Amino acid sequence: MSPDPRLSINQATIKRADLATALRVSAQAGIQAIGLWREPVQEVGLAAAARMVADSGLRVTTHCRAGFFTMPEGAARRAALDDNRRAIDETAALAAAGAPGSTAVLVLVAGGLPEGSRDLAGARERVRDAIGELVPDAGAAGVTLAIEPLHPMYATDRCVVSTLGQALDIAADFDSAAVGVALDAFHVFWDPDVIAQIARAGRAGRIATYQVCDWKTPLPADVLLSRHYPGDGVIDVAALTRAVIQTGYDRDIEVEIFNEDVWATDPLEAVLRTARGFGAAVSPYLSP
Amino acid sequence: MSPDPRLSINQATIKRADLATALRVSAQAGIQAIGLWREPVQEVGLAAAARMVADSGLRVTTHCRAGFFTMPEGAARRAALDDNRRAIDETAALAAAGAPGSTAVLVLVAGGLPEGSRDLAGARERVRDAIGELVPDAGAAGVTLAIEPLHPMYATDRCVVSTLGQALDIAADFDSAAVGVALDAFHVFWDPDVIAQIARAGRAGRIATYQVCDWKTPLPADVLLSRHYPGDGVIDVAALTRAVIQTGYDRDIEVEIFNEDVWATDPLEAVLRTARGFGAAVSPYLSP
Repeated sequence: MSPDPRLSINQATIKRADLATALRVSAQAGIQAIGLWREPVQEVGLAAAARMVADSGLRVTTHCRAGFFTMPEGAARRAALDDNRRAIDETAALAAAGAPGSTAVLVLVAGGLPEGSRDLAGARERVRDAIGELVPDAGAAGVTLAIEPLHPMYATDRCVVSTLGQALDIAADFDSAAVGVALDAFHVFWDPDVIAQIARAGRAGRIATYQVCDWKTPLPADVLLSRHYPGDGVIDVAALTRAVIQTGYDRDIEVEIFNEDVWATDPLEAVLRTARGFGAAVSPYLSP
Repeated sequence: MSPDPRLSINQATIKRADLATALRVSAQAGIQAIGLWREPVQEVGLAAAARMVADSGLRVTTHCRAGFFTMPEGAARRAALDDNRRAIDETAALAAAGAPGSTAVLVLVAGGLPEGSRDLAGARERVRDAIGELVPDAGAAGVTLAIEPLHPMYATDRCVVSTLGQALDIAADFDSAAVGVALDAFHVFWDPDVIAQIARAGRAGRIATYQVCDWKTPLPADVLLSRHYPGDGVIDVAALTRAVIQTGYDRDIEVEIFNEDVWATDPLEAVLRTARGFGAAVSPYLSP
């Protein structure tokens, strides 16, 4: 069975593969789309990466990731914003190099509390301010900034944006072409309000990307690596996917897995395994 | 410096101590109140435990814990509800044995997804149903059932009630004398809406108990044991405590810590260390 045509392999799922390998095994597996990461792109340089993407024939769905701009004003914040601007340019170049149907979406992970701070509310306001500074650049480049709420267990050390509702509240200040949300089932499935917030995100035209993986317990020692193939855990992927599709979402759907066992798997095998999981857990719910 | 008169030591903080030891070291440290756990109470029997509590001169703030009633109808659910009824009776007896100012509050941890289920919404409805069944018993016994929202990282395996707002939505169906919430800083601090929800809980007369400990990263391998002395982490305890006090909350405040290092500490030393942390991180914010 060939992979679902809407499945996009996020490069983090095969993190140990370089860009050439990631593109090759994805195409070899019959995958049509890929979500890229900055480090492997920068390893070969943007121009070469864009050529490689063009040659692959794959669609580009997201560029991962920028953000990390919760610090107060100063040199570190300026450097972070400059890096975000470079990421915007990378996103535009890579999406332009991708096959038709590619989307210029830059995923933003906000960052945690600055060292020594307990002020989540302040950090959250600085996220809004940072996005406000980047919107003109994103607009000029035709890139959508996708605010990604991360599971609350990452609120203090990785991402102070913790719920879909909160991400949408921030996005609401800006044009929906420039600012949307990255909706990852893993991060939001627990939220009692998630189905209503998905509908809200759809009405507001804010779902820049939808990502799927799975959750199960016990969590591994490093909670960053607790993501599983779709269907291998307890997330109600069917309900979330139906809700997303009901909004009219018609883009590709990424699978992004951080998991040592998955990373230790041969990348082609991991991609094929992802495609099987997606086919069983996601594909049945993609018809409106 | 003597401990804050409003500090209540939750027995889980000195988990390795039996009931006699927990009461003795708390009194010895100058603590005036204690939150009890069912296992050490049952170890000596309820009648003996009540006498020991009366002899200690301590106030009783909560009884921990019942709940775990997310399973569908059947023998297991009936057994769980019966066990909750026993816990209600225990709570009433222990609060009656405590010094004046004791509160008959039974903390409820809802439970996770039943084996093989992905239906969080269904499990959440069954929590509401279970509480509805227990309310007459709680009312007759003069006990308040305190729904405790747990951090979303426990949503699937321990507690499907994940936010204060959700707990208040469930409580709203019932009289506030019979059903309130257990508001634990550790579980709710990350919530972008927490200050507003604390105010809402206060207006509705639902804050049955306020508990404080701290959060820091990286989390330990067992995320259940990731709680720290107040002030040792990044929770804005000042802001949360101010918000709770502004509602008119005038009860004792528990410190409940699950942490292997704390448990390995001599219990008197752990209680004194807790009192110092509380004095620095909580006490300054207790004046309305």
